[in-house]
Amino acid sequence: MGKRVALAYSGGLDTCWCIPHLRDQGFEVVTVTVDVGGFSESELSQIAERSKELGAVQHILVPAADKFFDEVIRFLIFGNVLRGGVYPLCVGAERSIQARESAFAARRLGCEAVAHGCTAAGNDQIRFEVALRSLAPDLQILAPVRDLAPSRPEQVAFLKTHGMEFPSQSAEYSVNSGLWGVTIGGRETKGTSEGIPDEAWLRTRGAFSSVRESETLVIGFSEGIPTSLNGLDFSPVELIQKLDVIGGAYGIGRGIHLGETILGIKGRVAFEATAATLLLSAHRELEKAVLTKRQQTAKDMMAALYGDYVHEGLFTEPACRDIEALLLSSQKRVSGSVTMTLRTGSAFVEGVTSPYSLHAASRAVYGEAVGEWTPEDARGFGRLHGLAGILHARVGADS
Amino acid sequence: MGKRVALAYSGGLDTCWCIPHLRDQGFEVVTVTVDVGGFSESELSQIAERSKELGAVQHILVPAADKFFDEVIRFLIFGNVLRGGVYPLCVGAERSIQARESAFAARRLGCEAVAHGCTAAGNDQIRFEVALRSLAPDLQILAPVRDLAPSRPEQVAFLKTHGMEFPSQSAEYSVNSGLWGVTIGGRETKGTSEGIPDEAWLRTRGAFSSVRESETLVIGFSEGIPTSLNGLDFSPVELIQKLDVIGGAYGIGRGIHLGETILGIKGRVAFEATAATLLLSAHRELEKAVLTKRQQTAKDMMAALYGDYVHEGLFTEPACRDIEALLLSSQKRVSGSVTMTLRTGSAFVEGVTSPYSLHAASRAVYGEAVGEWTPEDARGFGRLHGLAGILHARVGADS
Amino acid sequence: MGKRVALAYSGGLDTCWCIPHLRDQGFEVVTVTVDVGGFSESELSQIAERSKELGAVQHILVPAADKFFDEVIRFLIFGNVLRGGVYPLCVGAERSIQARESAFAARRLGCEAVAHGCTAAGNDQIRFEVALRSLAPDLQILAPVRDLAPSRPEQVAFLKTHGMEFPSQSAEYSVNSGLWGVTIGGRETKGTSEGIPDEAWLRTRGAFSSVRESETLVIGFSEGIPTSLNGLDFSPVELIQKLDVIGGAYGIGRGIHLGETILGIKGRVAFEATAATLLLSAHRELEKAVLTKRQQTAKDMMAALYGDYVHEGLFTEPACRDIEALLLSSQKRVSGSVTMTLRTGSAFVEGVTSPYSLHAASRAVYGEAVGEWTPEDARGFGRLHGLAGILHARVGADS
Amino acid sequence: MGKRVALAYSGGLDTCWCIPHLRDQGFEVVTVTVDVGGFSESELSQIAERSKELGAVQHILVPAADKFFDEVIRFLIFGNVLRGGVYPLCVGAERSIQARESAFAARRLGCEAVAHGCTAAGNDQIRFEVALRSLAPDLQILAPVRDLAPSRPEQVAFLKTHGMEFPSQSAEYSVNSGLWGVTIGGRETKGTSEGIPDEAWLRTRGAFSSVRESETLVIGFSEGIPTSLNGLDFSPVELIQKLDVIGGAYGIGRGIHLGETILGIKGRVAFEATAATLLLSAHRELEKAVLTKRQQTAKDMMAALYGDYVHEGLFTEPACRDIEALLLSSQKRVSGSVTMTLRTGSAFVEGVTSPYSLHAASRAVYGEAVGEWTPEDARGFGRLHGLAGILHARVGADS
Repeated sequence: MGKRVALAYSGGLDTCWCIPHLRDQGFEVVTVTVDVGGFSESELSQIAERSKELGAVQHILVPAADKFFDEVIRFLIFGNVLRGGVYPLCVGAERSIQARESAFAARRLGCEAVAHGCTAAGNDQIRFEVALRSLAPDLQILAPVRDLAPSRPEQVAFLKTHGMEFPSQSAEYSVNSGLWGVTIGGRETKGTSEGIPDEAWLRTRGAFSSVRESETLVIGFSEGIPTSLNGLDFSPVELIQKLDVIGGAYGIGRGIHLGETILGIKGRVAFEATAATLLLSAHRELEKAVLTKRQQTAKDMMAALYGDYVHEGLFTEPACRDIEALLLSSQKRVSGSVTMTLRTGSAFVEGVTSPYSLHAASRAVYGEAVGEWTPEDARGFGRLHGLAGILHARVGADS
Repeated sequence: MGKRVALAYSGGLDTCWCIPHLRDQGFEVVTVTVDVGGFSESELSQIAERSKELGAVQHILVPAADKFFDEVIRFLIFGNVLRGGVYPLCVGAERSIQARESAFAARRLGCEAVAHGCTAAGNDQIRFEVALRSLAPDLQILAPVRDLAPSRPEQVAFLKTHGMEFPSQSAEYSVNSGLWGVTIGGRETKGTSEGIPDEAWLRTRGAFSSVRESETLVIGFSEGIPTSLNGLDFSPVELIQKLDVIGGAYGIGRGIHLGETILGIKGRVAFEATAATLLLSAHRELEKAVLTKRQQTAKDMMAALYGDYVHEGLFTEPACRDIEALLLSSQKRVSGSVTMTLRTGSAFVEGVTSPYSLHAASRAVYGEAVGEWTPEDARGFGRLHGLAGILHARVGADS
Repeated sequence: MGKRVALAYSGGLDTCWCIPHLRDQGFEVVTVTVDVGGFSESELSQIAERSKELGAVQHILVPAADKFFDEVIRFLIFGNVLRGGVYPLCVGAERSIQARESAFAARRLGCEAVAHGCTAAGNDQIRFEVALRSLAPDLQILAPVRDLAPSRPEQVAFLKTHGMEFPSQSAEYSVNSGLWGVTIGGRETKGTSEGIPDEAWLRTRGAFSSVRESETLVIGFSEGIPTSLNGLDFSPVELIQKLDVIGGAYGIGRGIHLGETILGIKGRVAFEATAATLLLSAHRELEKAVLTKRQQTAKDMMAALYGDYVHEGLFTEPACRDIEALLLSSQKRVSGSVTMTLRTGSAFVEGVTSPYSLHAASRAVYGEAVGEWTPEDARGFGRLHGLAGILHARVGADS
Repeated sequence: MGKRVALAYSGGLDTCWCIPHLRDQGFEVVTVTVDVGGFSESELSQIAERSKELGAVQHILVPAADKFFDEVIRFLIFGNVLRGGVYPLCVGAERSIQARESAFAARRLGCEAVAHGCTAAGNDQIRFEVALRSLAPDLQILAPVRDLAPSRPEQVAFLKTHGMEFPSQSAEYSVNSGLWGVTIGGRETKGTSEGIPDEAWLRTRGAFSSVRESETLVIGFSEGIPTSLNGLDFSPVELIQKLDVIGGAYGIGRGIHLGETILGIKGRVAFEATAATLLLSAHRELEKAVLTKRQQTAKDMMAALYGDYVHEGLFTEPACRDIEALLLSSQKRVSGSVTMTLRTGSAFVEGVTSPYSLHAASRAVYGEAVGEWTPEDARGFGRLHGLAGILHARVGADS
């Protein structure tokens, strides 16, 4: 009997191709689908069926959306992580969790190897490799798509010999759907000069062709975690899914990001991050009321590193655990509610309330009333605040 | 004959009140209005008239919009400076320049003192104090409004005795208009829970009551400086003014920011930063094509400090000059054009082109084609990229 | 009966002067001495006696060395905090704890006010003010030395009328002794060009006039905390005190620091930080074996902020709590032992051992043996590691 | 006739082996020795001879010490770059310059290829690869030692067949000597627990076996560049060489660093960085007198990145150029002189003088005299400095 391999399996062409390919190499293939919130019920059924049809000896579904929120998204919210000012790490973040859960499943199922279907051209191969090598150093790691680089026609032909039909042309856009957003790549994103057409969007398609009435949302947070919408409590995962639907109709969260890939080239991707955009905006504004500037400065510095590490597949880095400890500490008072107005194309934060508001705690009102200081205090502060620069100017002008 | 004082003069109630007040203290008052792009012709005329009526011996207008762009805004663009993720430092940035130009005028005009009309309750007093103490240490600095804290009725009554009428009630919203945006404070901004009503906005009022056709803009940049719109060249100041008009009709750039004031309390302000929003979005996306990730990391760290220093009135700090040198160096290749689609409520960056595009330079295409590396290279990179974390995991699990 | 005031009391001229001065203002004075490890038994007795002689109604001694270690020094070690590359924050760090404990004592003792004896010329006034205003906002805060600025002759004469003699000339050097080091200011430190003479040093005086045999120390750490010396366990406070004696004989830890004071001028101070120098060097080297580079990067960034905040008296800032959470998380594996050779004038770290060593975990040895990768892996890594710079160079040379 | 290859050539076993090996592959070999200050005249002669004996068609010596100072060391001084608090990047920094000069020579000499002799086990292979791929993308890059990993006996035997004798045993310690220091690896550095014995040191050997009289040095700086010693002017390169001799006799600059290598494992190396230690200490203290705290903060953040990039062979990264612009701007006033006392084992900075001293510019003296502010100013500053923390405490205690 052959060796057993656990294949991280999404049901797409690449991972489907892997099943018979690995069997041909003498492996018993177990497919492992880690659901972090991006699959519908019907997609999950199809995934299981295809696994069976292609000869996997077993198919495992690992529901991991809650874990994904608790271990990753939560900290991306705490850190207000937006790469390049716009991109909330839509799908990159979930790969490390998927790799880890695949590795754990592999071990539970007595596998000697674990396989992924990533190509040599993208970020995901690195995310899988790093996670698997960290968490499953005892397992053999296989990446047949990366190593053999089969062409689409070759894959389609090979799968046909195993009784499965795939279209011979790839779709114009490759879509990745997850809890924290959708990414869309193809045609225009291979260059940098153009956006994608309206019909290529998934969740916000058509949002701009008619104008909706504006709508007011009140999002509640408890220690940094989104917990309610318009007064009703939801689990974070449910809340994200609800906001995706509500905001999607307003076209919220569309963007195109041009970033540096892990491998060092630039990569461009369109994304729809509706819930992420709403939650990150709301959370950030709530923090402004309850955190001091110095807390925000420390958080921002660490969150920039954290975003880099998660993007680069370094979720197993212990530095991530240290930064998470800081982020967690910073959220003790990030409780309260945020009111937003949705209009087609925009989400406007109207205001926030919190029992921990530093704004409310002050007897002074900016621009209106002192109350924490006197004019003499202000004069003294002004004199000392810039003293270093004053001394520098006194020494002489620089050429 | 009395001592001469140069009064930094905006024509508002506070600085008007200063003229007869300073005259009563025995000063000859010269009013100095530093125009950094926020005054209309008719406002400038009124300012000059009021100065004369209230007994100033001389009125000086210092046009400083180009200087303001060259010395401050340019670097805010280079640094993509958005405080708290939203606020482009709309008016705070110009105070240091106004203070400096007032000090220089004071010296040219043989004054022994320089005065400002800021209250004890806001940021501007600190910005004026620091700049004046750095740049005019030989001059006496007067801040009668801060020190005496006259009430509005007192000011109105006093000015009436000098023949000038001001409304006895202040306007509901206090508006500050400048080249880099408008700030609006009042009623709702004294708390944190509500936004301001549509009629309180200045440049975007009514933008959401009807829907405009979408419109495409192409903004050209040369070494980080915006230089053209839809193929026509403009000076940066003209371009900013044009974009404010075009984008204002789409409601672009509205926001409310809750930030930490220089004095340590929270302050909340509504703002309309139309041109700033368009230019910063466009510039940031262009940079993504031409700068390396490491350049962006260094820039972002320094720009965060720079924004803090400019906000806090520390423009004379030599650290600002050092950071400007880095920002300037980083912009050598930030040349190209950016295409944006304006819709009511949103400005969407469709794409960028640049002769210096690192995206175009690559023979690999993200997610599509290797071409800079082989599968073996990618495997080697993946193995080494996360090696530190792999070794850490090998040593053992943390509790 | 008058109001009760708790006076933070060190027994020196300034705080002695405060007792009769405050009594003359109608206060009942309770003296509170917070011992963070800098006083000998005989000093503590003299402090208590003087308090009584000058008419305090009560004297309280608060032993706080262990608290000082747990709440402050521990984190300075975790963060390897050396200001300006040399200065381990010798006495500044303890002021916030002294202020806090004084405030807590004031409240326990039913005082309506709390007083400190700091002058207007230094950092400590700010540290006391910030801590007292944060932690005892209900109490009146008195700072008679700062506000009245009595001259030394005035103070001496006034105390003489209350039966206490102080020398009419101040000592040439003002010395502050604490658990984390000694600071020495006077004569030469008022300028920048000269060091202080050998006889001005306290703990290392004479160390260079003869040469000692070298000596080997083995310092043990447990989760970042120093816990043993040469195989014997000690409490951190004991260990610090032991190392001060041992290292002092070798002249270890002398330095002069020129730093920016909280008020914005430069301040210069000589210091002897013997134990701090030994422990910080040892801890830093141990960390190099067990932390990843990315952990060190995050820690270093946060520790720089932390050092600034503690120096500036901002220990009550919540940002400090957030940073402490990160530092604490980072220390989970900082356990092991460090071998140092002491010679006159130098402490050389010979080596470290730890069960968590990442060095030991590697099958590769730097410069000697691969074992974690192949030549092909290294070539791939090299190709991709610098790819961004390679693409940048490909686009063209910058002028 | 075969293709021409330029071999970066140090005359050691690995690069000697490369000559006949490359000839056997059909190449005409030109050897290029880039002297960045680490070779003696006799070493240079031997290098040239060996090249000829082994059949190179041409040998080129590129003197590059001044360039190395101007392009690299200068900025390491400006940035006070000490990795891990101790290690001044002794030899890593010169590899990028050596690779670049080799590439330029290759092009001048009409070569189609460029070769280096680095193994797969260290950092240098990556430094060479990145520099060569950036600067000579048109040339084939050969790394036969990395790729073939010949054993020492194989190399010795092979060279013997070409008439050259090398010892069959490698020296116990591998020594790398350069302008910015010496690194020493072997025996003890393969583990972490022990230092190297006295006889293994090169420049400081025996320094501790007798005690020298102390000696005073005065080092002059001009805009951050060291320019004089004890009143006599020297070029920077001469000054470094002089200080190495003077300080070496005192045992200054010894250390052992345990750092993360580019490839992700820990690497340990002993080093003697005598001149670097003296110059970095002196420069850092001079900066404290003339730079503001905010300048130092910005510099420190950027210098940490710069040190990382140079260490990791990323000298061609454009981010380095941006950071250099900041560093250069920061040095405008770093002129003056620094007095140091050398004793066996220690270099003590006694003091600094500068016409740009911010310390001298102040009318206040730390701890002694106000003069820039009043007690009221200080009270006001104290009240506002910690206001954010005060408000935070007012809202309530965190659990």
